[in-house]
Amino acid sequence: MTDFGILAPGWAGTGVDELVSDLAWVQAMLDAEAALACAQAELGVIPAEAARVIVAACSAERLDPRGLAAGVHATANPVVALVAQLTAVVESMDDYAVDYVHRGSTSQDILDSAMMLVTSRVFDRIVTELRSCAEGMAELARQHRRTPMAGRTLTQHAVPITFGLKASVWLKLVLDTIERVERVVLPASLGGAAGTLSAYGEYAAQAGVRGGIELIEPFARHLGLEPSVPWHSIRTPIADIAGALVFVAGALGKFALDVQVLTRTEIGEVAEPSAPGRGASSAMPQKHNPVYSTLIMTAARQIPAYALVLYQSMVVEDERSAGGWHAEWQPLREILRLAAGAATNAASLASGLRVQPEVMRDNLHLTGSAVVSEKLGAVLAPLLGKAPAKKLLTRLIEESAATGADLVDLLASELPQLDPAAVRDLLDPAQYVGDAPALTDLVLRNHIS
Amino acid sequence: MTDFGILAPGWAGTGVDELVSDLAWVQAMLDAEAALACAQAELGVIPAEAARVIVAACSAERLDPRGLAAGVHATANPVVALVAQLTAVVESMDDYAVDYVHRGSTSQDILDSAMMLVTSRVFDRIVTELRSCAEGMAELARQHRRTPMAGRTLTQHAVPITFGLKASVWLKLVLDTIERVERVVLPASLGGAAGTLSAYGEYAAQAGVRGGIELIEPFARHLGLEPSVPWHSIRTPIADIAGALVFVAGALGKFALDVQVLTRTEIGEVAEPSAPGRGASSAMPQKHNPVYSTLIMTAARQIPAYALVLYQSMVVEDERSAGGWHAEWQPLREILRLAAGAATNAASLASGLRVQPEVMRDNLHLTGSAVVSEKLGAVLAPLLGKAPAKKLLTRLIEESAATGADLVDLLASELPQLDPAAVRDLLDPAQYVGDAPALTDLVLRNHIS
Amino acid sequence: MTDFGILAPGWAGTGVDELVSDLAWVQAMLDAEAALACAQAELGVIPAEAARVIVAACSAERLDPRGLAAGVHATANPVVALVAQLTAVVESMDDYAVDYVHRGSTSQDILDSAMMLVTSRVFDRIVTELRSCAEGMAELARQHRRTPMAGRTLTQHAVPITFGLKASVWLKLVLDTIERVERVVLPASLGGAAGTLSAYGEYAAQAGVRGGIELIEPFARHLGLEPSVPWHSIRTPIADIAGALVFVAGALGKFALDVQVLTRTEIGEVAEPSAPGRGASSAMPQKHNPVYSTLIMTAARQIPAYALVLYQSMVVEDERSAGGWHAEWQPLREILRLAAGAATNAASLASGLRVQPEVMRDNLHLTGSAVVSEKLGAVLAPLLGKAPAKKLLTRLIEESAATGADLVDLLASELPQLDPAAVRDLLDPAQYVGDAPALTDLVLRNHIS
Amino acid sequence: MTDFGILAPGWAGTGVDELVSDLAWVQAMLDAEAALACAQAELGVIPAEAARVIVAACSAERLDPRGLAAGVHATANPVVALVAQLTAVVESMDDYAVDYVHRGSTSQDILDSAMMLVTSRVFDRIVTELRSCAEGMAELARQHRRTPMAGRTLTQHAVPITFGLKASVWLKLVLDTIERVERVVLPASLGGAAGTLSAYGEYAAQAGVRGGIELIEPFARHLGLEPSVPWHSIRTPIADIAGALVFVAGALGKFALDVQVLTRTEIGEVAEPSAPGRGASSAMPQKHNPVYSTLIMTAARQIPAYALVLYQSMVVEDERSAGGWHAEWQPLREILRLAAGAATNAASLASGLRVQPEVMRDNLHLTGSAVVSEKLGAVLAPLLGKAPAKKLLTRLIEESAATGADLVDLLASELPQLDPAAVRDLLDPAQYVGDAPALTDLVLRNHIS
Repeated sequence: MTDFGILAPGWAGTGVDELVSDLAWVQAMLDAEAALACAQAELGVIPAEAARVIVAACSAERLDPRGLAAGVHATANPVVALVAQLTAVVESMDDYAVDYVHRGSTSQDILDSAMMLVTSRVFDRIVTELRSCAEGMAELARQHRRTPMAGRTLTQHAVPITFGLKASVWLKLVLDTIERVERVVLPASLGGAAGTLSAYGEYAAQAGVRGGIELIEPFARHLGLEPSVPWHSIRTPIADIAGALVFVAGALGKFALDVQVLTRTEIGEVAEPSAPGRGASSAMPQKHNPVYSTLIMTAARQIPAYALVLYQSMVVEDERSAGGWHAEWQPLREILRLAAGAATNAASLASGLRVQPEVMRDNLHLTGSAVVSEKLGAVLAPLLGKAPAKKLLTRLIEESAATGADLVDLLASELPQLDPAAVRDLLDPAQYVGDAPALTDLVLRNHIS
Repeated sequence: MTDFGILAPGWAGTGVDELVSDLAWVQAMLDAEAALACAQAELGVIPAEAARVIVAACSAERLDPRGLAAGVHATANPVVALVAQLTAVVESMDDYAVDYVHRGSTSQDILDSAMMLVTSRVFDRIVTELRSCAEGMAELARQHRRTPMAGRTLTQHAVPITFGLKASVWLKLVLDTIERVERVVLPASLGGAAGTLSAYGEYAAQAGVRGGIELIEPFARHLGLEPSVPWHSIRTPIADIAGALVFVAGALGKFALDVQVLTRTEIGEVAEPSAPGRGASSAMPQKHNPVYSTLIMTAARQIPAYALVLYQSMVVEDERSAGGWHAEWQPLREILRLAAGAATNAASLASGLRVQPEVMRDNLHLTGSAVVSEKLGAVLAPLLGKAPAKKLLTRLIEESAATGADLVDLLASELPQLDPAAVRDLLDPAQYVGDAPALTDLVLRNHIS
Repeated sequence: MTDFGILAPGWAGTGVDELVSDLAWVQAMLDAEAALACAQAELGVIPAEAARVIVAACSAERLDPRGLAAGVHATANPVVALVAQLTAVVESMDDYAVDYVHRGSTSQDILDSAMMLVTSRVFDRIVTELRSCAEGMAELARQHRRTPMAGRTLTQHAVPITFGLKASVWLKLVLDTIERVERVVLPASLGGAAGTLSAYGEYAAQAGVRGGIELIEPFARHLGLEPSVPWHSIRTPIADIAGALVFVAGALGKFALDVQVLTRTEIGEVAEPSAPGRGASSAMPQKHNPVYSTLIMTAARQIPAYALVLYQSMVVEDERSAGGWHAEWQPLREILRLAAGAATNAASLASGLRVQPEVMRDNLHLTGSAVVSEKLGAVLAPLLGKAPAKKLLTRLIEESAATGADLVDLLASELPQLDPAAVRDLLDPAQYVGDAPALTDLVLRNHIS
Repeated sequence: MTDFGILAPGWAGTGVDELVSDLAWVQAMLDAEAALACAQAELGVIPAEAARVIVAACSAERLDPRGLAAGVHATANPVVALVAQLTAVVESMDDYAVDYVHRGSTSQDILDSAMMLVTSRVFDRIVTELRSCAEGMAELARQHRRTPMAGRTLTQHAVPITFGLKASVWLKLVLDTIERVERVVLPASLGGAAGTLSAYGEYAAQAGVRGGIELIEPFARHLGLEPSVPWHSIRTPIADIAGALVFVAGALGKFALDVQVLTRTEIGEVAEPSAPGRGASSAMPQKHNPVYSTLIMTAARQIPAYALVLYQSMVVEDERSAGGWHAEWQPLREILRLAAGAATNAASLASGLRVQPEVMRDNLHLTGSAVVSEKLGAVLAPLLGKAPAKKLLTRLIEESAATGADLVDLLASELPQLDPAAVRDLLDPAQYVGDAPALTDLVLRNHIS
């Protein structure tokens, strides 16, 4: 079936799905077969000429993907059929090279190496998009280093913050994510039937050379992947990939959720980038839906669950498992394209976000002076003691909320020693943002370095 | 991208993916648009002639799926673009009907109704395959009602069972699953922009008829779905679907896991159905891998995670959510095709499973008489008291395991009052299967009714 | 360790944890031992007098729970140690009854039956709390059957709804949940070592009676549970429990999330019940945090994940599994107390929720007439055609938003044929709630029946 | 309720639960309060004498945990009540210090810092146990560097491996896990009400010093944690902890699952360490259940699900969330004690595992020469061509399996040019373990370094 993305808001329209399509995966498997031939030629296990023919044959367009899928049904993996098809292509090109295809190899070496290649290509895209996203967020943080707004905790106005600080929170999460994606090691897979490399070594021995464990390095080098001991049943790379991609979900999901809160009709402190048709409703002409954040949220809600499947695939029996390995492929593809889609959409959102400082300011005054009650508490504590100060404030804030009376006036009538003008000055929320600008700078410095 | 199933052992080669393809989904959305027009014509909200044109236009081949996917990126759902494309088709057929397309409707009514239609079609397939699977299991249970084998608990031989009882355990799980799939109610979705049906009612009022809440029943009827109050943010149907499909995973996963244990080289009590190429390895000529159980296990390992996403989509904000709803579509498709694929493969496995009663018998004697030590305990308890009997047995079994001495001989030398021949007779494992046959019959009776 | 609930906002302070404490579980296991003795006495397998002694001994206070936990470490389940301790208690009471304890039984029969007993007791509590919650919601629905408020979709004002409709959405979810909890069948577990009931039958045969499969019914009856074929490796009951409790999470999580949105400082349409100290902050005197919805949300975020573990426990190998079964106990306890805690807190929230109809009305007018643009579209469609009408409206709404001009004035100047007064009348949001009251009634009727 | 571990095979009897008990958590919160006072005294924000009193008061035994749990119900976190109780203790010791308790602080600073402290203590235990586990595995790898056994793939004998290689697979996973646990950064949390540190700065300003952002470093230092920008809504540390602990589950789960396979009655290649009562059954005297692997599996099946909750807590709204944060505590405790319990049990299992090389050798010959068919293929390929060689072998292996004829004899009769004696020599499985010893050495070298 063709998957246009109609059910996939997480990545539809971003183009990332082509990086993980069946064809991309087939090509990556062929790349692994080609790298194997090259590495074996390099060691003298097979003739260089045979390797040249095999490399030339390793092109996805030459294969029949439907036949590969039928092979999956018959043998539980696509490599048995892929080797048969590749062998036929090689045979049609140069009969002599036929015996050197897939020499000493096993399905899992090819498929796992392909998996790492595909992942590597998607990781490049993800990091590029995340960097672009970080740049947009850094710009927001710089521009709004001192733009005051209400800090919200447990859904309620708490104390003032700056929008720059909020943007730096998003930025920090994206920087953490880039770091976690970049530290993942993507190894080539070479182990043979049960992880002993025995058939590789046997064929090499027949050619009078060594080519078991010695094959690992050149094979990985030809693929641009890391060398590793066989990892058929050591699924660390899969778990590491999952562990990096849940960060994409978490970091961008947090960003999207905040944007959704701030774009609410009653709040309106930011707006998504606007374009004709973007955010339109099928029925309501006035609607401008926060589409980017919705697309991102879609991915963020799914990724951790698919990551779970990948984590659970660490627990597999024997030298190669009957089901655990096979259950990795589909969720891995899904998580890769969801993460890449989310990163792409987040980059668009971060660079196009429209900020409304005046609305932030208006909202900040919605509760009168209550939003700086914490500061008042600190000011009154030395006069009254900490607990009595908090108790008095709680009472006056309730009175002010009930009667509409000004909190400062109420305070002044209780505490004649206070100068109302000074108090009022004290209560400017824009003056009570603490170290928000300095903290923003700290995060920004991290971004530059 | 085209998904041939190369990465999807869970359903590749079963054909179930076509039931949930983008095209199938588009057709189902068009079916919903057609049903809406018919229902509105029935109530007099729109002219019957307009409905006829719309119905004729509602064919998936007339639309451009790539455009729908682009629409998903722009508006977070495919319906806005679908309505535009459908309107253009209608216009090309009969200008007059244009204004009656999608009248008073909203994206979620169309997409959710389509989702239920698609689910309904896949459920039919799943139930058919599960019934066939149950038939195969029932046949195994009947044939092996008295075939003794080792019961295994915590991986160790425990006491004898029959293979019929084991098959009836599988059967019971499949019957439980069919019941849970069949009891799911699949409702049409009709709520309008925010679940009040207001625009439907407004258009109806203009036509001088009633057609808000009154539209629910005929709309559902035209779709073959159940009528329901608007469920835009009451995701009971989605959670019910997930709840049924985790049973498919659980029931068939248990079956597959047992088959994998029993096909182990050292155990060999059953074998998967064999066919040329089935279960082949790319390197090892002797391998006959248990492919069906591996394919099923692949699905069983993934389904619960996708179900989790669907369950979590119950927790959505407002009248229609920004992300929760959208995150349902992809996992729902996935879980449907994995479950249908697993059911198809399980039906093949259950009907083709090859049973080896002699191997079962041989394995049953692997521990000498220890496998009936529970029975010996019961026999000795009245003679010695329960605890002393168990203590004596434990000592003699250990001695027998260490020295290779026959347990009965050891017993006889300790307890001269026992008649070794009678004891030996007592220790025939085939005579200690308890009520296994009767329990098998109980489950089978359930199957017939 | 003692778990006071300090880390468990989901159930702290509700008292539900005592229903699932280690002691409650131990008592339930003893209840199972007592029921077994009674049932066996009833069939004549053991003397009635022995059963009386055993019943008298089955009191949790007589056992040493620390010893049971040590037993878990040694044998992977608490029943081996429990039987040893119970046997010692019986011995101290009446030597003669010792041999009749746990006769023919196995750990899983006792533990699984206890699990169902504990679940049954918690289910009673959950249903009671959910009914109370439903009553509170029904009251809100009745009282606010016609209270208009903004319907919100994708975070934006869409069209008007009523608060009664919103309450009826919550109510429908709770009613669906009660139905799903009540339909779960909780069976007693009786299978013996490997599900054949062989030792039960053997002991009965020694007593000259039948007591294998025949024991199932009286054992279940003494426990107030349903009879069932042995389900050691048919984990349907566990999956059914999980399936019901995810509904508690989903239904109450939706309720809590809506309350959190509506209590936001900028929205303020509802407030949580207030009491001294409730919702207090350690630093900010003005804060009234929406505590109940936070407590509920805590549970809603956890339950589906633990349910996943329970679903996955369906896939277990052999007659009794080495790990799958054991992994059920802790998440089952957790999910039970979280669900019961959430139900308790939701009942308090539903009955104490304070509704602010004037704030709802004020918010409804925040976007001027845009919130009824859908209705305007319907009114203008016959005059201009559907698409031109939507296009005109989109333009005028944008102009109105940009300039502050009144939408009706803009319309009147474009369409002189319209009567501004009639249009203005048309635009009263309170008049555009569609069938919200009728839909509310439908749900309420369901509640009563 | 008291949790003795009766339902928790994953950690019962290991003592790790005391590290995460409510009391441990309370003490850690008090440690955070004490560190805050010390750091503020260091900066001159509060008097050194006040800090001394507060430090003296910060002892968990002085508090009433039941009152803290009640506070959780009232305010959704235990810190509001903890501050009240601590203030009372300080007051009872020295009235003067009362106003300096929790100065400028917020619940999340205290609770999150405590969370990191508790985690740090459990991580120490986990790493110690994992190192001990690695040592046991390394010893097995060294001792069995050349012990041949059957390699198993998709449950079937594939080609020979060595037990040393299998042990090195386990070891590599444990080493990967240690690395991932050790690289987690555990930061102190200091942000104040909304992450601006404003009240800290305000109080400091009153004292004429700076103590907002400047407080971060000394506070962290006093706790032995890392300094960090405020992370109230940057949940990287939580996700990192989850990401490390899923590795504990994955690595040890793989180990346990392999042990369970190898201890099966029919396989018997390893046995768990034996001790009186360990692995006993309540009914069957002969049973020696693989208890350690079952205990470990219990944890491995649960941890990923709890990790999922923690990952999802990255997606939280605003400056501090209403539910997301609160949902972290319980699964974090659970995952910590499950991981520590699993590590403890795995250390016992690894150091006590009993290996049966003769059984391995016997099993290796179960399929005759088929287990080296891969090698035969490599030997015959140059003679016959790769594909014809595989075809011939497949035919002869089937014939051998069906008739019981010796594969070498069959081969010799087909290929007179082969010397049967040489072939037979070739087919010794112990000679076909490829680079297993060298790969084992590679992993062992990693362990030493």
